[in-house]
Amino acid sequence: MKAAIIGGTGYGAIELVRLIEKHPYIEVGTIVSNSQAGTNFSTVYPHLSGIKEIPLESFDAKGLSENNEIVFLATPSGVSSKLVPELLETGIKCIDLSGDFRLRSKNDYETWYKKTPADEQYLQHAVYGLSEIYPEKIKTAQLIANPGCYPTAATLGLLPILKTSLADSKTIIIDAKSGVSGAGRGLSLTSHYAEINENIRAYKLGAHQHIPEIEQTLSDESKTPITVTFTTHLVPMTRGIMCTTYVNLKESSSTEEVHELYEEFYKNKPFVRVRPIGSTPSTKEVAGTNYCDIGLHVDQRTRRLTIVSVIDNLVKGASGQAIQNLNMMNGWDERTGLYDIPMYP
Amino acid sequence: MKAAIIGGTGYGAIELVRLIEKHPYIEVGTIVSNSQAGTNFSTVYPHLSGIKEIPLESFDAKGLSENNEIVFLATPSGVSSKLVPELLETGIKCIDLSGDFRLRSKNDYETWYKKTPADEQYLQHAVYGLSEIYPEKIKTAQLIANPGCYPTAATLGLLPILKTSLADSKTIIIDAKSGVSGAGRGLSLTSHYAEINENIRAYKLGAHQHIPEIEQTLSDESKTPITVTFTTHLVPMTRGIMCTTYVNLKESSSTEEVHELYEEFYKNKPFVRVRPIGSTPSTKEVAGTNYCDIGLHVDQRTRRLTIVSVIDNLVKGASGQAIQNLNMMNGWDERTGLYDIPMYP
Amino acid sequence: MKAAIIGGTGYGAIELVRLIEKHPYIEVGTIVSNSQAGTNFSTVYPHLSGIKEIPLESFDAKGLSENNEIVFLATPSGVSSKLVPELLETGIKCIDLSGDFRLRSKNDYETWYKKTPADEQYLQHAVYGLSEIYPEKIKTAQLIANPGCYPTAATLGLLPILKTSLADSKTIIIDAKSGVSGAGRGLSLTSHYAEINENIRAYKLGAHQHIPEIEQTLSDESKTPITVTFTTHLVPMTRGIMCTTYVNLKESSSTEEVHELYEEFYKNKPFVRVRPIGSTPSTKEVAGTNYCDIGLHVDQRTRRLTIVSVIDNLVKGASGQAIQNLNMMNGWDERTGLYDIPMYP
Amino acid sequence: MKAAIIGGTGYGAIELVRLIEKHPYIEVGTIVSNSQAGTNFSTVYPHLSGIKEIPLESFDAKGLSENNEIVFLATPSGVSSKLVPELLETGIKCIDLSGDFRLRSKNDYETWYKKTPADEQYLQHAVYGLSEIYPEKIKTAQLIANPGCYPTAATLGLLPILKTSLADSKTIIIDAKSGVSGAGRGLSLTSHYAEINENIRAYKLGAHQHIPEIEQTLSDESKTPITVTFTTHLVPMTRGIMCTTYVNLKESSSTEEVHELYEEFYKNKPFVRVRPIGSTPSTKEVAGTNYCDIGLHVDQRTRRLTIVSVIDNLVKGASGQAIQNLNMMNGWDERTGLYDIPMYP
Repeated sequence: MKAAIIGGTGYGAIELVRLIEKHPYIEVGTIVSNSQAGTNFSTVYPHLSGIKEIPLESFDAKGLSENNEIVFLATPSGVSSKLVPELLETGIKCIDLSGDFRLRSKNDYETWYKKTPADEQYLQHAVYGLSEIYPEKIKTAQLIANPGCYPTAATLGLLPILKTSLADSKTIIIDAKSGVSGAGRGLSLTSHYAEINENIRAYKLGAHQHIPEIEQTLSDESKTPITVTFTTHLVPMTRGIMCTTYVNLKESSSTEEVHELYEEFYKNKPFVRVRPIGSTPSTKEVAGTNYCDIGLHVDQRTRRLTIVSVIDNLVKGASGQAIQNLNMMNGWDERTGLYDIPMYP
Repeated sequence: MKAAIIGGTGYGAIELVRLIEKHPYIEVGTIVSNSQAGTNFSTVYPHLSGIKEIPLESFDAKGLSENNEIVFLATPSGVSSKLVPELLETGIKCIDLSGDFRLRSKNDYETWYKKTPADEQYLQHAVYGLSEIYPEKIKTAQLIANPGCYPTAATLGLLPILKTSLADSKTIIIDAKSGVSGAGRGLSLTSHYAEINENIRAYKLGAHQHIPEIEQTLSDESKTPITVTFTTHLVPMTRGIMCTTYVNLKESSSTEEVHELYEEFYKNKPFVRVRPIGSTPSTKEVAGTNYCDIGLHVDQRTRRLTIVSVIDNLVKGASGQAIQNLNMMNGWDERTGLYDIPMYP
Repeated sequence: MKAAIIGGTGYGAIELVRLIEKHPYIEVGTIVSNSQAGTNFSTVYPHLSGIKEIPLESFDAKGLSENNEIVFLATPSGVSSKLVPELLETGIKCIDLSGDFRLRSKNDYETWYKKTPADEQYLQHAVYGLSEIYPEKIKTAQLIANPGCYPTAATLGLLPILKTSLADSKTIIIDAKSGVSGAGRGLSLTSHYAEINENIRAYKLGAHQHIPEIEQTLSDESKTPITVTFTTHLVPMTRGIMCTTYVNLKESSSTEEVHELYEEFYKNKPFVRVRPIGSTPSTKEVAGTNYCDIGLHVDQRTRRLTIVSVIDNLVKGASGQAIQNLNMMNGWDERTGLYDIPMYP
Repeated sequence: MKAAIIGGTGYGAIELVRLIEKHPYIEVGTIVSNSQAGTNFSTVYPHLSGIKEIPLESFDAKGLSENNEIVFLATPSGVSSKLVPELLETGIKCIDLSGDFRLRSKNDYETWYKKTPADEQYLQHAVYGLSEIYPEKIKTAQLIANPGCYPTAATLGLLPILKTSLADSKTIIIDAKSGVSGAGRGLSLTSHYAEINENIRAYKLGAHQHIPEIEQTLSDESKTPITVTFTTHLVPMTRGIMCTTYVNLKESSSTEEVHELYEEFYKNKPFVRVRPIGSTPSTKEVAGTNYCDIGLHVDQRTRRLTIVSVIDNLVKGASGQAIQNLNMMNGWDERTGLYDIPMYP
């Protein structure tokens, strides 16, 4: 099966290329980059020298769909919403890594993204691709809205406790830390080496566009409207996201009880590793892989649960989860092509 | 005035040496390191070549007090409690950078430090040296318990709101991030380069020894027993601490109101910079200096205040605050020797 | 086929585990760590949770050889020389990642390693496993002395020009830069985060134990005794080695001519990528993979060739080359299990 | 005395501000930034909040010279050459941190900088401000061409041996490594965090514009035309330059002899620290200061001298040396305002 990648010069795209190369059933068919069409891919990314010596192409929906069976859109927000309708019309399936089809509410999109939302019909059509939570819908989807990096780590960490009566859903605070690759390859002062090295920076307080995405999933799954406090920090590293999440417990509980509940929740989910009690995951421990590792601690003094969830933002937080979704759409084992051991150290 | 430094091979000590060198009224008299007595200081720390060519000495309370007028103890917890009594008896004043004299309760010390506490009389005698909050007591102190790095950033960030009726003191969550130098120069796997580079790690969940220190100050100042959730993270950088602190507001308020309240609280405190609304401090913006910068954001959706406070853990979090306290003890301007502009980038 | 790994708690060993997991024909049989025998491997390395849940074992030559068909020794220098004889006697093949069997001269080993050398018979018996250069000997080897990280990058960069009459072999200078993982997981001040972060350090000037190894290969292949200047630097990164190598040309030449010569030399070597003229490789462009990338520049002004060769020190510089050698020993395609695309960024 | 700074939003400028703040005899009068005129300086650089609350101004030669007694130009190459003539005409002295007045040959400037050179009369007029080497000329200069960062480290490392008959001046190879701040605050992919973190990169092989600057000084001082091989590398750190320099010795010598020669050469130069034999400097050991530290090693096997010289590229490599030159121009102790101890760790 051949896959097309749109947005070929960004980090999402090269991570897709890296992962597809390991996959037994798919290969890269076309890589689209309007800005650099005609250039050899390995000129833009010399680490691909001798491996992917193919030219970047211009966007052409019809051509794409003739040569490929799936399209990954690794485009910025505001771009996918324009390309997807044309692609879907050709009958090809789409997995969109941007935020354009994640929020069902056009209002929310406008408020948080400050851009024109996608058409209503496509928003209703899109399946939110949080693989562990929506496997049935993903199987039959034509259009996957692949989850954001922060929302993946945050919701996988929160859902098991939220779906019990233990959690006080009004008290959720998510303190998130991310490596800099999450901001992409576009130049900006906040990704400038000398500004971010040996530094930690909080940004977009109360204004990050992933807030409504997190709230939508938590509200859907808990069947209550949920509002969260969510703070993002830029950490001097390339890859990795950690969410340290706090939630009050309505009744006294123990780390053991909560831990058991999480193990049960994720028992058949190969990419979520609930860590043994006393073991707290660090981001490097999932580097390069599709794992989401979760550590748990109930503080008896404050009756508060602390959840530490980590992912590689470019894998489980983007391209890896996209492959996992593709596997599920095709009835393959969801681990296909994703068996890697984290690169440590 | 001459100053002695005990614990001469640690990061606290060399930061003291760096700061004392800029100070117009003090100079380094004696540097004590029992483990390396006899060695030249610049052999241990070649960056001092040609600047501080003096031999490290063994501990000798009497000798120290004859040659110096102040002693800084930059020793590990459990050591200061043994040396201070002997030093105080000679009549010399002590500023202790360890945790040994910070907690008034011997029980708390035993519970959290898992070591033998100092004698009751010294614990009662010690003045907690949070410079901005206890200036009067510091002026006349014989023994200063210099605050911990995390507690300095956390309490300076929280006290202005806590001292109003706005804050719901049951909802305090402090999510703290630190550079690796805070762990000192002692070898350990958690300070091993390949383990911490390109990684973020949460540690000591619910068990960090700075918890009771933070709670003691917050409880004292708010006149209510306060329990906090406090989580510490190791970030791949050498210096810097950021506390992202969350507290619910009992009534509706705005960033503007809270900001004004903070500006008022710290109006005569030269080392606390309350940032303009919309500006969130990053750790590099205080690097090498005694500043504590504070950013504020009230989220109307959740009626929660987010406070971002940053310090250089080795300066305001240790040696710089020790100098600031010394200045106050001597009736000098508290800024003496501490006027530096942050080293940016 | 099952493989045993000795030295199971070091970085060489976990990188072997990561690579073996991708390999279609081998799997990990036994992991030996005398210091932590009985401990679960995933307790030492939590990134292996749920993936390699096997206990570490004590060394037992007989047991090992019954359960495995190959042994990788990822042990420190001075240890392999003691274990290998016993292992070879059982008939099992050994690939030693340490320096114990690389130097044919016992004198050289004593001079540079300051330890007792291995027995003469084993030194003569060992095949130096520089895969691209000694494929025939490797195929039939019982004992492979897997090359050092620096020597791999240095000799692969130098050999093509050295084997012509162009190079003035008296003028070789190798300026090498390495990430910190090369020093292993053992604690030391030079791997202490706060000492190496935001720092570059030259070390062991004229005294690095890889000097005689490099000289041995260069002398063998050029059939002249060669002495080199070789300087090592520690760079604040985890993985990666770059050798910037300088050699005078006896006659005028051009980058084009030299480039052609290198392309010819490595034309059937899938893991050596001679970069197009004008493209200089960086270490991240081979991260996590077995590639050695080479960039070339002839400076007409000085008639000097500059060679930039990069590898991932833990892959092509250690465990990856070990797998490549195993592939060759078994008649498999040398790329088996090693097809990865570099992890970029 | 008041000083004007042109190019106010770059790293050179903020380092000048930091250093001037410590200086007893000068203060910042005017900060010029045409691109951001009118903006408050602390809005561009929040680390200056409450310290330098002054607006950035447009360039106005006449106004500048009325309010200030010295001008520092921290402008890009190609800009200073246009502003300096106008400034000198007002009678004010200029210290130019760019490359515009360093090369006496207009041809060389055009060849290496690929820009229009400054007018001949100004090139002849300018004094090359390598403080340790040209103190007499600096004292009476109207226009200082402040040396480049790499040339400062390289020439201070080489001159003592070059001025003897020992060095074979045809064999000089300078392998230079720099932190990323040297590339300034302008956005570019080579300063993009995710591209340079966990990476080392060689760049501009044989083409760096500092080559003719180094050769000019070495040729002047040795009274022979000298051609060097000079390679630059970008290292994942913010500050610091290390030059590892190789030169063949014409006769047999020892580290001791060479070391004595260097100590003699720099005996009255407070900012050059020749390290004891066996001690090799690292960049962090001079961080934030005006020191140039030099380590030496003679390899008997190859009769080659290795010189390791390190500086902070923003201090001795730019703004610090500019202040040192200003001190000398005014007859002040050259250390005035520059006494700092390196910030370690």
